[in-house]
Amino acid sequence: MKAIVLLSGGLDSATVLAIAKAADYAVYALSFNYGQRHQIELDAAAKLAAASGVVEHLITDIDLRRFGGSALTAELSVPKDRPLASLTSAIPITYVPARNTVFLSLALAWAEVLEINDIFIGVNAIDYSGYPDCRPEYIAAFERLAHLATAAGVSGGQRLKIHAPLMTLNKAEIIQRGIELGVDYGLTHSCYDPDPAGRPCRCCDACQLRAQGFVQAGLIDPLFAHE
Amino acid sequence: MKAIVLLSGGLDSATVLAIAKAADYAVYALSFNYGQRHQIELDAAAKLAAASGVVEHLITDIDLRRFGGSALTAELSVPKDRPLASLTSAIPITYVPARNTVFLSLALAWAEVLEINDIFIGVNAIDYSGYPDCRPEYIAAFERLAHLATAAGVSGGQRLKIHAPLMTLNKAEIIQRGIELGVDYGLTHSCYDPDPAGRPCRCCDACQLRAQGFVQAGLIDPLFAHE
Repeated sequence: MKAIVLLSGGLDSATVLAIAKAADYAVYALSFNYGQRHQIELDAAAKLAAASGVVEHLITDIDLRRFGGSALTAELSVPKDRPLASLTSAIPITYVPARNTVFLSLALAWAEVLEINDIFIGVNAIDYSGYPDCRPEYIAAFERLAHLATAAGVSGGQRLKIHAPLMTLNKAEIIQRGIELGVDYGLTHSCYDPDPAGRPCRCCDACQLRAQGFVQAGLIDPLFAHE
Repeated sequence: MKAIVLLSGGLDSATVLAIAKAADYAVYALSFNYGQRHQIELDAAAKLAAASGVVEHLITDIDLRRFGGSALTAELSVPKDRPLASLTSAIPITYVPARNTVFLSLALAWAEVLEINDIFIGVNAIDYSGYPDCRPEYIAAFERLAHLATAAGVSGGQRLKIHAPLMTLNKAEIIQRGIELGVDYGLTHSCYDPDPAGRPCRCCDACQLRAQGFVQAGLIDPLFAHE
């Protein structure tokens, strides 16, 4: 049984990769070079893919940067030291327009070619509820779209399933699940604004959520285990 | 009022561009360099965009070629001299996997950045019924997905509309509509397999459909007006 796993190199997608492997899928990992301001994420994705023994790891380019509109892809500054409680109230500036729609569409294209009916994605409605495309109803709508886009027979009519196993977990639960499955979180990268050596800033939203997750899970983040 | 028009450089999208302009939209034209085997299509798109006075014409890269799976992007041969009656019976080999889903997703990303609620696409359920992602129910599903992907407020909650004005027209009707609107079909390109000088092969499916459309419309294709 084959599955595509969207692999960003972050903590969430590393956990999803481990979940897909634990379910005995032969994994085709898909990462995107979409004009991120740093390549550390993609390096992390490559390390995670190699460590978990995927069948193939494809990094594909999409030129979202030219569309503008986000601190992750445009020349805006990443917000720092925001109270975490504020993150659920509005769409964060780090939102990449239509990102999950674009990513899932490209995964769908690859799935058609490989005749794969299972796609795994690390979206999460708990710790990222500011992103509209991380909700269960969005995932269900994409499944329906995919079915209509391919129903005439490309994949034999079998319905595409989008697996979002982290949907209802908080960050601490995600980390606990990953640790059970042997994920080496020391290979992952979460920071929106690392220093030139690739070290996390520890004050952007992503760093704060990650730190809070490890604290709540009662674990030490291996990225800082040496301190 | 602003709109994004997906502009391939073909006959259909040239007509859609004219329809959007005639409806007084300020047009942002979007084309894709997705590993087509020839650049003539993109040259045609650029000429059409310039001729009709769009606000902006963005050509963005997507690396679909690495996914394989189609005669348009992989190293398969384009079928020639097939009876047109056979085209509706199966998904043609020239199908690009998930193409309209990928294209509409990227249009959605740009629409969010530009705060645009109208996207025009030249899909057609009559002459291309072998493509699953050219059906009305597919377009409706994409609108629903787009609404869910952005409903939390990015574009003020206004519902995105996908305009597919060619949906129920046959090729002859499309050409007649375009001629009424002043489209110069001499700028368009349809052939899947042009010669090195860019001249149409006149026997692939796209050439045959185009020729049949002009015959049925009682018009001479300006690409061959000199003959």
